[in-house]
Amino acid sequence: MNVIQNMQICKFKIDKFEDVMDELIVEFSFEIFINDEKLITLMCTPSNLECLAVGYLYSEGIIRNYSDIEEILINKNSNAFVYTHDKIDLTCKHSNRTKTSGCGNGSMSDIEFEKLNISHNIDLNISVGKIAEMENSLMKMSGLFNRTGGVHNSSLWDLNEMIMFHEDIGRHNTVDKIIGEALIKDIDLSDKIIFTSGRISSEMLIKSVKAGITIVISRSAVTVKAKEIADKLGITLIGFSRKNRFNIYSDKNSVVNMKIEKDV
Amino acid sequence: MNVIQNMQICKFKIDKFEDVMDELIVEFSFEIFINDEKLITLMCTPSNLECLAVGYLYSEGIIRNYSDIEEILINKNSNAFVYTHDKIDLTCKHSNRTKTSGCGNGSMSDIEFEKLNISHNIDLNISVGKIAEMENSLMKMSGLFNRTGGVHNSSLWDLNEMIMFHEDIGRHNTVDKIIGEALIKDIDLSDKIIFTSGRISSEMLIKSVKAGITIVISRSAVTVKAKEIADKLGITLIGFSRKNRFNIYSDKNSVVNMKIEKDV
Repeated sequence: MNVIQNMQICKFKIDKFEDVMDELIVEFSFEIFINDEKLITLMCTPSNLECLAVGYLYSEGIIRNYSDIEEILINKNSNAFVYTHDKIDLTCKHSNRTKTSGCGNGSMSDIEFEKLNISHNIDLNISVGKIAEMENSLMKMSGLFNRTGGVHNSSLWDLNEMIMFHEDIGRHNTVDKIIGEALIKDIDLSDKIIFTSGRISSEMLIKSVKAGITIVISRSAVTVKAKEIADKLGITLIGFSRKNRFNIYSDKNSVVNMKIEKDV
Repeated sequence: MNVIQNMQICKFKIDKFEDVMDELIVEFSFEIFINDEKLITLMCTPSNLECLAVGYLYSEGIIRNYSDIEEILINKNSNAFVYTHDKIDLTCKHSNRTKTSGCGNGSMSDIEFEKLNISHNIDLNISVGKIAEMENSLMKMSGLFNRTGGVHNSSLWDLNEMIMFHEDIGRHNTVDKIIGEALIKDIDLSDKIIFTSGRISSEMLIKSVKAGITIVISRSAVTVKAKEIADKLGITLIGFSRKNRFNIYSDKNSVVNMKIEKDV
């Protein structure tokens, strides 16, 4: 399915109108069914839909592992039919919902911190140079953003390189696509770093932390609640990462002032 | 309730770390109860909560007019208790939900275009100079954004001046606050213009149109679906409104190339 569509628009610049063809971002109504029962429609960018479905189900606590899923089918209309080994009662999953502030499928059941699966086995550090390298790479890679101005992106890194990159009209969807891909490919997230273009509100942070990530970096703002949660859980939380500057909101000792030597 | 909180963070710039106090945006869990039954928790900026509650209920089709509400109380914990004249069955309101791509309370029941209340009685025009004036005013007014970088804003204009301005961490919430204030103050929206910082996805457009607005302007992108809906309904839809330039996605004939003479 196309993620971009060419459409006729009229551009105004200084004092002239001009009819042109321009690229607009597609917004797709992605339906997820669990054991043939409709769960939700997510408005999203129609790419990597299997990752999105799996990541969403995990973030919402509907599955606990990828192995809970017996089969996942994306049908010809690009909707997801997920079949689980065990029966899932969706009535309780629909109750007590919180509508979040976020772009995308911003809905989380009420937060139960004690249930968050925080791995403190690994004490990850990140260097100033690495953060700059990440930010620089992402600016170059954001193809859909550069063409349409209408998407967020999230990327997953190990200490050497970027290993995943997802774009979506919803900032939450970008993180769910990362989480879904990691679950499908059985990638451990506890020694990985997420870098997102989107603002870090509480639910963006919790989504990442639930999946095991302990370093979260954003080009955008961080809310009070996200900082409070990061402080409590020992998460490294960085915001406003732009050229040669960033703010550390939590766990500043994990950020080391060490430049990475570039191979020439 | 405070919308901003001072917190200790660590800023990195060029090659130095510095511990500073910085202003972060507050994220509030706003609970809305209808006739003592919990409807939803919205993550929002805790300002103008009555407007947000009323606008949200209207956008979601839970009320059809402000007069459907018998009483609305914001309690000491800043949650909303709304009492309606007639009983409301929330079970059907909870079904068939769509999670939208948007910041804020992005949830809408499936769209039924024929039920949208479009006023074609008024054929509004807007001038190029007015659009520039709006954009210029908003940049100056965005206090929370300038201080925290973490909010969207929406403003409502008549052909002379700005008559409302709301900021929120959720872009949908900014529009719901506008709609709620208009309902509470009995302001007709059919001859007004909305200018928002947020991206116009289908649900942002539909929210505005349901409330009667026929000119929608954004500093950000417009999705394919939003353009298609605007084309179908004859809505004037403008995006990427920045200094001396903008894109007209729909109804270009309503935009006239006439500069507004400024009083000196």
